[in-house]
Amino acid sequence: MEHKNGLLIVVSGPAGSGKGTVLSDLIKDKNYRYSVSATTRAPRPGEVDGVNYHFLTREAFEARIEKGEMLEWTEYCGNYYGTPKKEAEEVLASGCNLLLEIEVEGACNVKKVYPQAVTIMLLPPSFAVQEARLRGRGTESEEKILARLAQTKNEITHVGDYDYVVYNHDGMADKTAEDIRAIVRAEECAVRRQGDVAGSYFGSAE
Amino acid sequence: MEHKNGLLIVVSGPAGSGKGTVLSDLIKDKNYRYSVSATTRAPRPGEVDGVNYHFLTREAFEARIEKGEMLEWTEYCGNYYGTPKKEAEEVLASGCNLLLEIEVEGACNVKKVYPQAVTIMLLPPSFAVQEARLRGRGTESEEKILARLAQTKNEITHVGDYDYVVYNHDGMADKTAEDIRAIVRAEECAVRRQGDVAGSYFGSAE
Repeated sequence: MEHKNGLLIVVSGPAGSGKGTVLSDLIKDKNYRYSVSATTRAPRPGEVDGVNYHFLTREAFEARIEKGEMLEWTEYCGNYYGTPKKEAEEVLASGCNLLLEIEVEGACNVKKVYPQAVTIMLLPPSFAVQEARLRGRGTESEEKILARLAQTKNEITHVGDYDYVVYNHDGMADKTAEDIRAIVRAEECAVRRQGDVAGSYFGSAE
Repeated sequence: MEHKNGLLIVVSGPAGSGKGTVLSDLIKDKNYRYSVSATTRAPRPGEVDGVNYHFLTREAFEARIEKGEMLEWTEYCGNYYGTPKKEAEEVLASGCNLLLEIEVEGACNVKKVYPQAVTIMLLPPSFAVQEARLRGRGTESEEKILARLAQTKNEITHVGDYDYVVYNHDGMADKTAEDIRAIVRAEECAVRRQGDVAGSYFGSAE
């Protein structure tokens, strides 16, 4: 059997979708990995360069953007955050699937640069459940909760740009992770990813 | 949750692909069903009309073709065989997935009539393995084996018209059936099958 590259899996989801729990279930599997992101923010105590992040100066980060070396990037609170292409390609070349958790705009950009990416929007089962989850946390101000809910209305208008939508029901993050594993398994069987089926069928002996 | 139609799953595979074993594994699951085919051949002893087949006269079968009431049909050894649309639609409306095992030409026709169909080509891991399986059966003449192998060369040229290709390795029919279940689970999450995601998200309380 020839060696196969892993798949680039982009997951977006609004606040309260339970992304964190679902992705931490997936990442237990050795076939799924994160890549180390790059950032211009200062390292926090204990953070190690090349492990937690690649810590870059603003100039170095911008130079990488200009050279097309970032798969995706965003600016947040005055700092850049992004995924170096080289990091991503190393994970994929190792045969592991690369999980990227990015917001809607970034996800659409990745799909443009890397059309083979599999894009998944993770959603709570309904807006009512999302609202209940955000209020249930009890950790955020009413203002912040309303801002997050308003943001979701915008995010969902982009669902048509995604390949899949997966609903994360209460207490069923393991089922949700299983949905994502099924998507990956199916995508691996997609004819458009197979190259020369007839050639390898007639040419190769197992 | 709104009621969802099942998926129409079309499986084609050359002789020696192990279709029978794989499909009989899938059909154990109550969410997968076959439909009752129609045929013009005479009932064999014990066969019941409407259970084993819908037994039709040649005239009745041809009238159904003309009225567009057959989802797919073929002529084999002087008899018609086909899938009545009504049968298929009843299975799908019940929420079950409908398995259709048909050859390449029929599969491409179904996809034209019913673009939502999921088409899967099931293959042995290689031509060498396929040949070994056919010879290993010891039930067919050399001439027939060569004819089947020649037919495979033609069939595989159509793989690009299928959505998925699944390899059925020796002794791993359960893993192969699992691949097909993953494909179905993924297709159920495909955004293009979801209708109005935003509408149901904001409108429905769970």
